[in-house]
Amino acid sequence: MDLAFGESGLLPAVVQDRLTGQVRMVGYMSRESLAATLRTGRATFFSRSRSELWEKGQSSGNTLRVASIHADCDADALLLLVDPSGPTCHTGTPSCFFRRVEADGSLTLAPRDAAAFL
Amino acid sequence: MDLAFGESGLLPAVVQDRLTGQVRMVGYMSRESLAATLRTGRATFFSRSRSELWEKGQSSGNTLRVASIHADCDADALLLLVDPSGPTCHTGTPSCFFRRVEADGSLTLAPRDAAAFL
Repeated sequence: MDLAFGESGLLPAVVQDRLTGQVRMVGYMSRESLAATLRTGRATFFSRSRSELWEKGQSSGNTLRVASIHADCDADALLLLVDPSGPTCHTGTPSCFFRRVEADGSLTLAPRDAAAFL
Repeated sequence: MDLAFGESGLLPAVVQDRLTGQVRMVGYMSRESLAATLRTGRATFFSRSRSELWEKGQSSGNTLRVASIHADCDADALLLLVDPSGPTCHTGTPSCFFRRVEADGSLTLAPRDAAAFL
């Protein structure tokens, strides 16, 4: 079975801290960015806005060392278990998922201890 | 800030067991499926292949009770913390991420204890 990159050529890649279980971010990977990740051991994504590869942390130093990569049953989503260096979000928070979707669909800032894995 | 559903009208939604931290699956949500999820408390996705809403577990019984929903910094990805009922994958495994991407890019079946959160 091969990965199903499909028409867009991209797969969503969930980044999870392999020790704490915290989901840190979701990025997108092309074949090329996956190959770079496998080669270097550092998470490298495809930027949809800039249409180029970016190695996470190349400018900030907040890299993601990849311990293992997993694919789902349809081979159209990836899960990266990583050892993060520093915060993952560009805002300075450990995880990018610091907002909560309320019952009416609005977004609020979730308290840091709102959930076990946030 | 609003969720950025963008041109496709869909956001990737990562489903994580809120007690164990296991990432169970990745689905896609439209505004309508998110509204249904918020209304019912059960994860409801948009099927890209069938172009329709599907409530996870409606036929299998393996539902996902949603404890909270989170959005990332760009508001273009969702994280659902859930209490799963039964296995989440249609293959019968708890998580859909039972394959491992090897160094050469090939996919293998990962041993169940390959990683803390798989």
